[in-house]
Amino acid sequence: MSAEAEALILSASRAELVEKVIEPGLKENRLVVCDRFWDATIAYQGYGRGLPVDTLVRLTMFAAREIEPDMTFLLDVPVRVSQERIRGRLGFADRLEQESLDFHERVALGYRELAGAAPHRFIVVDGRRPEDEIAVEIRQQIIGRWKR
Amino acid sequence: MSAEAEALILSASRAELVEKVIEPGLKENRLVVCDRFWDATIAYQGYGRGLPVDTLVRLTMFAAREIEPDMTFLLDVPVRVSQERIRGRLGFADRLEQESLDFHERVALGYRELAGAAPHRFIVVDGRRPEDEIAVEIRQQIIGRWKR
Repeated sequence: MSAEAEALILSASRAELVEKVIEPGLKENRLVVCDRFWDATIAYQGYGRGLPVDTLVRLTMFAAREIEPDMTFLLDVPVRVSQERIRGRLGFADRLEQESLDFHERVALGYRELAGAAPHRFIVVDGRRPEDEIAVEIRQQIIGRWKR
Repeated sequence: MSAEAEALILSASRAELVEKVIEPGLKENRLVVCDRFWDATIAYQGYGRGLPVDTLVRLTMFAAREIEPDMTFLLDVPVRVSQERIRGRLGFADRLEQESLDFHERVALGYRELAGAAPHRFIVVDGRRPEDEIAVEIRQQIIGRWKR
């Protein structure tokens, strides 16, 4: 698949998710939690695949009807650690997970730059710690934001 | 399917066609003929569905890697004629063909405006005439352009 087709088909999937799940949820004042949103397109298809970031921003905003998350948690781990976790997992690694170490280094750089550029919504969490500690930190951050 | 998802998934398909068929054909100096290209996205998803045309132009240019056709033939017929032809055809009408008369009037208007805005490549052909006459006219137009 071409890099452009990959970006477009992932964005088509996101557009459906926005119309069918996210927008109705927000309209009902529900808390909507996503595992990845359009930052992933900028990081993977922009920084990873080398597609132009400004065009991807416009594309993803169109797909997401300009919806921006209130909070974004970046679980940051060294690429070698994430690679070990993927290998240790049972079953299947997807086409992005199977990419080179170099690709994943660019994606990680992309996410860190996105976090730096949007500090009002990004919370960078040290992903090397145990899962239950990370869960506690994320819960506290959400409660803290909610109270404000 | 949301209008955005429709535009994105059709563009994903076009991006694949550009990478796998159109770009390799152009690199070999072949004559590449398409039944619909990105004007269709502007006409159907822009004028028809009401998505913003400027964003669609950027999206389709991204999907097509900025490739613009040298010649575009618009076979113009009144919408009622095209609807009769679809009904007279054996089998299946697709999701766009099944849309309302009003939708198809907007699409036809879109195509005519696109033709008016890009006269260097658009050739509007009266599509009410017999198929063999239309074929002769298109062939002559292509040969005429080729000689220049």
